[in-house]
Amino acid sequence: MNGEIISIGTELLLGQIINTNTRYLSEKLAGLGINVYYHTSVGDNKKRIMDALTIARSRAQLIILTGGLGPTDDDLTKETLAEFLNLSLEINPEELAKLKEFFARRNSEMTENNIKQAAFVPGATILVNDRGTAPGMALQHEGCAYLILPGPPVEMEHMFSQYAVPWLRENVIPPGTKGLFSHVLKFVGIGESKLEWMLKDLFVRQTEPTLALLAKSGEVHLRLTARARDKEEFLQIIFPLVREIRERVGEYLFATDEVSLVDSIAEELKAQNLTVSTAESCTGGMLSQVLTSVPGSSLYFLGSITAYSNDIKTKILGVPEEVIAAHGAVSQETASFMANRIRELTGSMLGIGITGIAGPGGGSSDKPVGLVYIALAASDLHWSSGYHFTGDRDTIRQRATITALNLIRKYLGVSKR
Amino acid sequence: MNGEIISIGTELLLGQIINTNTRYLSEKLAGLGINVYYHTSVGDNKKRIMDALTIARSRAQLIILTGGLGPTDDDLTKETLAEFLNLSLEINPEELAKLKEFFARRNSEMTENNIKQAAFVPGATILVNDRGTAPGMALQHEGCAYLILPGPPVEMEHMFSQYAVPWLRENVIPPGTKGLFSHVLKFVGIGESKLEWMLKDLFVRQTEPTLALLAKSGEVHLRLTARARDKEEFLQIIFPLVREIRERVGEYLFATDEVSLVDSIAEELKAQNLTVSTAESCTGGMLSQVLTSVPGSSLYFLGSITAYSNDIKTKILGVPEEVIAAHGAVSQETASFMANRIRELTGSMLGIGITGIAGPGGGSSDKPVGLVYIALAASDLHWSSGYHFTGDRDTIRQRATITALNLIRKYLGVSKR
Repeated sequence: MNGEIISIGTELLLGQIINTNTRYLSEKLAGLGINVYYHTSVGDNKKRIMDALTIARSRAQLIILTGGLGPTDDDLTKETLAEFLNLSLEINPEELAKLKEFFARRNSEMTENNIKQAAFVPGATILVNDRGTAPGMALQHEGCAYLILPGPPVEMEHMFSQYAVPWLRENVIPPGTKGLFSHVLKFVGIGESKLEWMLKDLFVRQTEPTLALLAKSGEVHLRLTARARDKEEFLQIIFPLVREIRERVGEYLFATDEVSLVDSIAEELKAQNLTVSTAESCTGGMLSQVLTSVPGSSLYFLGSITAYSNDIKTKILGVPEEVIAAHGAVSQETASFMANRIRELTGSMLGIGITGIAGPGGGSSDKPVGLVYIALAASDLHWSSGYHFTGDRDTIRQRATITALNLIRKYLGVSKR
Repeated sequence: MNGEIISIGTELLLGQIINTNTRYLSEKLAGLGINVYYHTSVGDNKKRIMDALTIARSRAQLIILTGGLGPTDDDLTKETLAEFLNLSLEINPEELAKLKEFFARRNSEMTENNIKQAAFVPGATILVNDRGTAPGMALQHEGCAYLILPGPPVEMEHMFSQYAVPWLRENVIPPGTKGLFSHVLKFVGIGESKLEWMLKDLFVRQTEPTLALLAKSGEVHLRLTARARDKEEFLQIIFPLVREIRERVGEYLFATDEVSLVDSIAEELKAQNLTVSTAESCTGGMLSQVLTSVPGSSLYFLGSITAYSNDIKTKILGVPEEVIAAHGAVSQETASFMANRIRELTGSMLGIGITGIAGPGGGSSDKPVGLVYIALAASDLHWSSGYHFTGDRDTIRQRATITALNLIRKYLGVSKR
């Protein structure tokens, strides 16, 4: 079965917003076993929406329209679809009552044009909008299924997963249809090309599951994709391949699917009952901010000092002035002192020190932009080393943060043994 | 003149990546005065790319294709366009030499399939790729112009702005064509509905320039759009309206267009020769990280302490234990002490203290999730107050950060008088 997505809204054509709805819907449709061969975006214009529908109808058995369901004059989606199908729209009394109640609860006036949000093609299934005022609609007509969904992603995604998917499963998708599923393995501390080289034969012999590599700001993601009836069957299909990959490059693997590097570290810090604190210079608190982005982070994170000026490095953090004078603020020695000192000051079991040059200014021939020293201090271990990251200021700060997170991840593996 | 954008790549149809190229190109084409009525995405499939070209050709005089220019077998864009136009591809010796040199410089082997990146339609203009290996192409054929651009946004955007726009201006766009320009006014500290209410009559009487409101994580943006021959004429057209808006709600206006709240603060801190430091609890270093995201931030930012545990609040930051015992770690008093103490410790002119409950855990009936106290301390002034932010953990932390930035912005206005 072929599906097509038509996004409606002049703001898309003017480049005022990014279309995230097609990405979301495409991924979900793949999982449902519906092939998507085309996306179309079109403005709030009846004739052009009609043209897009005509073309899509010639190629697909499921057409999903998003956007243009609001109360204003430029919202034309339902009207245009009705005209395309030679059907009429009728006010649904229950939906109208719901709308009136919605406005009454907010003590705001319901204007005339809001009424059209309660209009539907007779016989169509109304899709509830729990996140906004415009309901959606699902119907079948002359061998083609149509889904009408709102444009705002928060409304659209909820309506699709809660109401449209069950409707599709019941009415449109043949039972036993195989969907396309993906499983992502996330690596850190290894480059894209090295990972590809170490898994070369797996890439060559791939048919299903297929493999795809994706470099992502300091991490490398490996996506395994296969067709299966459901998630469980999919996991069985990919199991031998995942085991093989783990055996070869498991030491760089930190998480799968939606789990992020910091999530996996947070879980392990809590499991091992460890605490951490950070002393940062060029990252300016980015590591601290990432470590505290996880709910419950107060269980393992004690605190952080962003020592941006040398004065703060010596006075508050207590890095000896002689060390900075002899080696410079950006040096392995300073990073080491920062890691040790924050550990002592906060009483944490782990201390991280980061100092470097994020740029674009401040670089020199012996200490260029992108040079960053990172140190990890623990009671039983002290690591420190220098890195040379490339990219703009934000990229350098992000890479330093990910490298520091990876140091923590490595320590957690060591401490477990 | 009508333009259409065709994005090519199966990963788009599987929902594996978000299509940011169409947003970028649409905005630029609007500025060039080219109407875009349709976007299409299609997979790496010759027949379907041909179909998309046929449809686009019937509606547009400029067709932009992005993606599918790489060396691998599924990269079909140039071949398919050549077939569509009944033209052939020929290897360009100069481009082939460049490619060979590129691989030689990296000491990596140039495989056979890389050669096709040097193939072009004879007579076409080659668009240089300064960010990758696949050059683009521009040509005119039977009354229609074609631009072939690479898929990776960093390559595509550079090639478009540097090489495609000059080609379009010289060959395709009639001189004097009016483009659609936008100017964004950014507000903070005022809600979307209040701003709309205060500018209500301007919205009603709008024809050109048109006005559009957009709420964006703690900020509200107002977009003014009008047609003009160039940016200068555009600024003249919108000037009276901008003046009127500034008179009414100027106190909430912090920046325009691409300038962010932190950019505008950074500039003003530097201009007034002021320094700032932060003491953060629930934001976990987010404010520090944002304040140091601007190049040259060491001129105004001294340092920060993330005092996540109460122990750190008392021992390192020096908030009296009695204050925390009497009022709690999340209290106006603690925030005030944090702001004062970080100012004293670092010797900065401004100190910011933030303490609150970002959730999802840790809330209680009298101190619910989302309660945040923020204080600003200066030699001549002390502000502190409580806020109740809604949303998830990340949203609460972001709103607290933006509110703190807005406090700094307000202080900078006061200190200037």
